[in-house]
Amino acid sequence: MTAIENDLLGGVLATDQYQLTMAQAYWKDGLAERRAQFDYFFRSYPDYGTHQAGYCVTAGLGWLLEWMETARFGEGELEQLRSQRTPEGRRRFEDGFIDWLSAHGDFSGITVDAIPEGRVVHANVPIATVTGPLAMAQILETPFLNRSNYPTLVATKASRAKEAARGRPVLEFGMRRGPESGSDAGSRAALIGGCDFSSNTALSLSLGIDPKGTHAHSLVQVYLALGMGEKEAFRRFAAVYPDECTLLVDTVDTLTSGVPNAIEVFRELEAEGHEPAGIRIDSGDLAYLAIQAAAQLDSAGFEQVSIVLSSDLDELVIWQILSQIEAEAPRYGVDASSLISRLVFGVGTRLVTSEGDPSLGGVYKLVAVDDGHGDWVPAIKVSEDAEKIPIPGDKKVYRLYDERGLATADVAALVDEDLPSFDHIDLFHPHRELHRRIDMSEISRVEELHRRVFDAGQATNGEADLDVMRKRRIADLELLDPGVRRLVNPHVYHVSLTNRMKQLQRDLVARALNGD
Amino acid sequence: MTAIENDLLGGVLATDQYQLTMAQAYWKDGLAERRAQFDYFFRSYPDYGTHQAGYCVTAGLGWLLEWMETARFGEGELEQLRSQRTPEGRRRFEDGFIDWLSAHGDFSGITVDAIPEGRVVHANVPIATVTGPLAMAQILETPFLNRSNYPTLVATKASRAKEAARGRPVLEFGMRRGPESGSDAGSRAALIGGCDFSSNTALSLSLGIDPKGTHAHSLVQVYLALGMGEKEAFRRFAAVYPDECTLLVDTVDTLTSGVPNAIEVFRELEAEGHEPAGIRIDSGDLAYLAIQAAAQLDSAGFEQVSIVLSSDLDELVIWQILSQIEAEAPRYGVDASSLISRLVFGVGTRLVTSEGDPSLGGVYKLVAVDDGHGDWVPAIKVSEDAEKIPIPGDKKVYRLYDERGLATADVAALVDEDLPSFDHIDLFHPHRELHRRIDMSEISRVEELHRRVFDAGQATNGEADLDVMRKRRIADLELLDPGVRRLVNPHVYHVSLTNRMKQLQRDLVARALNGD
Repeated sequence: MTAIENDLLGGVLATDQYQLTMAQAYWKDGLAERRAQFDYFFRSYPDYGTHQAGYCVTAGLGWLLEWMETARFGEGELEQLRSQRTPEGRRRFEDGFIDWLSAHGDFSGITVDAIPEGRVVHANVPIATVTGPLAMAQILETPFLNRSNYPTLVATKASRAKEAARGRPVLEFGMRRGPESGSDAGSRAALIGGCDFSSNTALSLSLGIDPKGTHAHSLVQVYLALGMGEKEAFRRFAAVYPDECTLLVDTVDTLTSGVPNAIEVFRELEAEGHEPAGIRIDSGDLAYLAIQAAAQLDSAGFEQVSIVLSSDLDELVIWQILSQIEAEAPRYGVDASSLISRLVFGVGTRLVTSEGDPSLGGVYKLVAVDDGHGDWVPAIKVSEDAEKIPIPGDKKVYRLYDERGLATADVAALVDEDLPSFDHIDLFHPHRELHRRIDMSEISRVEELHRRVFDAGQATNGEADLDVMRKRRIADLELLDPGVRRLVNPHVYHVSLTNRMKQLQRDLVARALNGD
Repeated sequence: MTAIENDLLGGVLATDQYQLTMAQAYWKDGLAERRAQFDYFFRSYPDYGTHQAGYCVTAGLGWLLEWMETARFGEGELEQLRSQRTPEGRRRFEDGFIDWLSAHGDFSGITVDAIPEGRVVHANVPIATVTGPLAMAQILETPFLNRSNYPTLVATKASRAKEAARGRPVLEFGMRRGPESGSDAGSRAALIGGCDFSSNTALSLSLGIDPKGTHAHSLVQVYLALGMGEKEAFRRFAAVYPDECTLLVDTVDTLTSGVPNAIEVFRELEAEGHEPAGIRIDSGDLAYLAIQAAAQLDSAGFEQVSIVLSSDLDELVIWQILSQIEAEAPRYGVDASSLISRLVFGVGTRLVTSEGDPSLGGVYKLVAVDDGHGDWVPAIKVSEDAEKIPIPGDKKVYRLYDERGLATADVAALVDEDLPSFDHIDLFHPHRELHRRIDMSEISRVEELHRRVFDAGQATNGEADLDVMRKRRIADLELLDPGVRRLVNPHVYHVSLTNRMKQLQRDLVARALNGD
């Protein structure tokens, strides 16, 4: 791969080929600059096998918008299109189209309205609406999905791990099993979704936070191989990091070797005026070993030392560990809540691969096309599966909060429907024959969810600061019914259409099936 | 994220933080330049739930080695290390270490011996051995794993999909659900592992192959919304791509609308001297719809037109579709083998996420350290789980072929053991008390598997050409017992240690447990 080819990978050709062939077909038909609208949404929450999520946390938008600011058809990309040949040896892309791309092949004509990154989002609700010239909005489909689906999947899993950890720190350790360069997006999403820190050095630094790490088994192995033993390995490591010394205690044997050796080294650190930071356990029965290690540390007077647990953790494993500690710790004279309050969780593989459900089925669907005179014609895709029929047309998306102040429904309305001015709202399920009426007196707040985040070639949502995104998530989670937050078998959050939106959807389906 | 921070992401700091803290500890102890050896291997084949793989296809090495050629601690990275602070506000990395990195912080002292990319590889066998200065070899761990595990996982899944497809073309379509920028590595691995083409335009072009694509539902939706209908959408698309026109027929209704409309447009193409390429079906009962579509196409005289199937395909779904076609096609007057010979499979999400087992547990373990006088001291990590004990020491890896010429065992030997000169070999299971003796007269060929692929800062395995890698895979698969290739419940391939290697492993475990 040459440097030029390497440049291609991060550029505007990082899309599915059919977006380019469709774009040329639109251009050929005079439709390349016709305004169109696409919605990005997912149809169902990740289902990890035994435990489906009740909500997602959206992530990826910041990097997507940065990419959109710079991605364009430059000479390198255009040359690649010129050189593509059909099986018959003819040019696949003609000069007229390439000239058009040369002039219009960027995202400056596109606007993106979106639910900001870090917020709680729900199935079937447009997380983003992309509006702009049909050809470029079509080419954007693949990069949009590629930069949104995976991050949202990981942010969602991270939020669940953080919920399971009951507020204790959660560290992201997934790079070694993560998806090659996509691991950076995964680490970033984990930090937005719930992880406090990451071991990914470059990514952490790029977001302005401290990368975290202890040491690996190999450190102990080196000193063992050189005949110096585990304690000496700990001692040498502690000498370099006396104030942030977390020792990995399971290279030889956790309870008979690792913890006793760590305690000796901690005593030496303390004698020199330092405060030992922690131990890490990376194998075995983590709950049992944490209890026994805590008992040993407590007897030695190291009640404040953290206990970092890692080894294929995810939200259910964390939940199980905490439940087991609550049940078992008292039997060994260890106070369960004190122990829990010193735990730190390192989550890696299962987080960055979203073990149990490794993909988010987010889609980018055409919902409206300009009729050529400035009016939107709503578009629909009929499907054998009613659950796949999208919400058509130009729309607004609202979140309703109930009398307790908790989010009770996300509602898609026609763009001219002003929900706050309604007396009541008839809410219809997006796909099923379910209907309920809400009196607006029961509603404490109506929030419009979309913000203009991209316009005239620039991201317009300001700095996508990690702290801001995390605060959005925390605020949204606090406004979510505990039943929806639940890790297993959550309540299904209400996502609804207004009466007029439902009628539009029904009319379009009927017309499409009649072949109109 | 500024441009400088963006540069960090692809650089040498794309590693776990603890590699850096360990490297400084080694430097502090005079061990930074001590020679060490790490093996990269995985302990178990991907297990997709109902069907564990019997082999893997290795991928990722080419891009890893390219990265190693250029990654180094430049001023930007060193400045980041200088600015890191401990919780007490002290410098985490001291000037002496940073000076050392400035002089020695690249991979020019590292050699990599590896099984070349594209080959069939097995559990516990070192796919690669990294030798070099301890600090830099340690820092390499995370990038090595990050650039090897995910590609090997995807290449393996692709190989299985290709096996299931009985030689029919398999196209990789996964970018939209793939792991952000890691999708490029996924597409590349898919192409090495078994996919014939990819929809990922930039990646395909960077490897010198034609990107593939048809069109999306949105194309039909646009013309439907503008009142022109599906047939007109097909007609306009066909006009632009008359010689590679594959039409997506399931936007309205596959059998009553899509296929009949496609047939009309194919007739028009034919009348103008063009050969229609195919139809694509992306939803519903793919086997049933393929049969009915084939019947309609056959009656219209389009027996040669391809039928592309997509929609959450993987190896088992492909297998099931082919089985169902064989059982059902005759009932509808369709010849099953003719139908199968016109099929093309588009696999996406389930391939690039390795649905069922989304991570490969590849590890990078210290196996030897220089004693300071040029001799290797073997290293081991004892574990509560015997299956996790690595194969220690400096070693050679052989593949033995039986009298049929098929691969029968991969064998790890001490570096001074010359297997081809043996009369017989006693083979021991890496972890269990299993032993068998092979007479060398039963062995038709002994192949040493590792090649020197990186030396003196340069990749030395020549051009990692896609064709070469694909040929390796195909050759290796043909030399694999059909029982090991089987998609479900495969035979377990023999991976063994020689007598002396087994003895070394036992001795080291015993010594480690005795605390020596």
